[in-house]
Amino acid sequence: METVLSSKTKTVVISPDRPFVIIGERINPTGRKKLAEELANGDFSRVRSDALAQVEAGAAVLDVNAGVPGGDEPAIMRQAVQMVMDTVDLPLSIDSANPDALEAGLALYQGKALINSTTGEDAALERVLPLAKKYGAAVIALCNDERGPVQDPQVRLDIAKRIIARAADHGVPVEDLLFDPLVMTVGADSNAGKVTLATMTLLRAELGVNLTAGASNVSFGLPDRPVLNAAFMAMAMNSGLNSAITNPLEPAVLTAILAGDLFLGHDEYGRMWIKGFRKREKAKAAAAVA
Amino acid sequence: METVLSSKTKTVVISPDRPFVIIGERINPTGRKKLAEELANGDFSRVRSDALAQVEAGAAVLDVNAGVPGGDEPAIMRQAVQMVMDTVDLPLSIDSANPDALEAGLALYQGKALINSTTGEDAALERVLPLAKKYGAAVIALCNDERGPVQDPQVRLDIAKRIIARAADHGVPVEDLLFDPLVMTVGADSNAGKVTLATMTLLRAELGVNLTAGASNVSFGLPDRPVLNAAFMAMAMNSGLNSAITNPLEPAVLTAILAGDLFLGHDEYGRMWIKGFRKREKAKAAAAVA
Repeated sequence: METVLSSKTKTVVISPDRPFVIIGERINPTGRKKLAEELANGDFSRVRSDALAQVEAGAAVLDVNAGVPGGDEPAIMRQAVQMVMDTVDLPLSIDSANPDALEAGLALYQGKALINSTTGEDAALERVLPLAKKYGAAVIALCNDERGPVQDPQVRLDIAKRIIARAADHGVPVEDLLFDPLVMTVGADSNAGKVTLATMTLLRAELGVNLTAGASNVSFGLPDRPVLNAAFMAMAMNSGLNSAITNPLEPAVLTAILAGDLFLGHDEYGRMWIKGFRKREKAKAAAAVA
Repeated sequence: METVLSSKTKTVVISPDRPFVIIGERINPTGRKKLAEELANGDFSRVRSDALAQVEAGAAVLDVNAGVPGGDEPAIMRQAVQMVMDTVDLPLSIDSANPDALEAGLALYQGKALINSTTGEDAALERVLPLAKKYGAAVIALCNDERGPVQDPQVRLDIAKRIIARAADHGVPVEDLLFDPLVMTVGADSNAGKVTLATMTLLRAELGVNLTAGASNVSFGLPDRPVLNAAFMAMAMNSGLNSAITNPLEPAVLTAILAGDLFLGHDEYGRMWIKGFRKREKAKAAAAVA
């Protein structure tokens, strides 16, 4: 199954037969006080630099979130999306819980965007699926519903099935859905990682769908998070994860993704691995000079 | 299924429900010129220090190889095994292609050892299985035969099945077999990692057997090997690898194993992870002082 996203001139295909797709998560004011202040004041320069840095680091899609506390989210979303479109040529993920902000971004965007996100809750589906249909966008679908996250892969699979049926009702095909199996921290529940990995395996085996995740949640509250995130990323790729909303500027996670692609047979002759190695060596040499 | 190894007083259980078992690989003169010279000259002090360092780092079993070019391998094996037994109290893996050296180590060893290794070749099975029966040892079984390594998970599974049948003929039960799915470098064949991971999944699903591997082969000839080895270890654990012959003094691989145990639900409350983190912090602080 292929999930296709596009900008004006670039197409990105998410598929089990292709290299992993990184959805850069940096353009998001949540937990970034400075960026939040700048966005509220109409300063989009950091959106520009974050876009450039993430593309340079290997992001194939960029997530744009404009959720500034007290801000005019639709207006900020519009400006942020415009700034990113003016800066780089990649498909975007329009990220908001606010339907007006989602629509503001989607209406302006030129290409086939990704909507981040819906859950299996009726209210969310009824809000998001019509927008996906109207703008021809793909959608990230989280495998939880009114019950909140359930620690049972079978329950998460059943929610995914229901989302597929509801999407079909709205004319949104299954290949436009990117399922998030829910990544919870193992710091709170020792079985959380196992459940997420098993959910990925089930979703791939039973539904053949493409997957995405905010994978770094897994290590919340634990020490040495980059090391944990890198290991989890490799394991998740082995269970079928083929895209993630993550920070490509985090070297441990980026190298884990390159290694994962290599070991899954998506990097012929290790070309991408060797290219990444040379890039890291160059960066090290530059840092040593400076 | 449980594969049990023991020393005089310690028991190690390899099972899908338990934390990963590290078989320390350092006591091996292959590619270690200094150690080879010392062993040939009857100096076993490095065997002692390597044993202590690996146990301190987290090895649960120690591999002992006495293959010094031109050396009296059975005699060296005897002395090396004695030295390790006198130094630490862990189950040993007796590692040789020479049946006299294997028997020398097994005859002396007090406990249930692991034999490293047999293949599915008739000659190897006829050499190794009677020793396993005679000394009540477990055996590492590599999934290749007269044909050499075949890049097909189904062929490797068939070889494993044949080894199980031949072992049964010799009175060696399946739980005393630890299967090595064969880890080849992706540097030579881009599909090698994928084939190995698929073989692990098949062996676990079809036969329920325990697994081991010389996992670091996967990165041979490529740059940044520790990073690759760490990612592959995490992926392999996710495919069912539950022990490996590896170097616990390599921090990247050791932390990947601890992370793998955490994400597979084998580390309640993240206790082992946090303990490992503190140990690394302590080592860093000590290094900074020195």
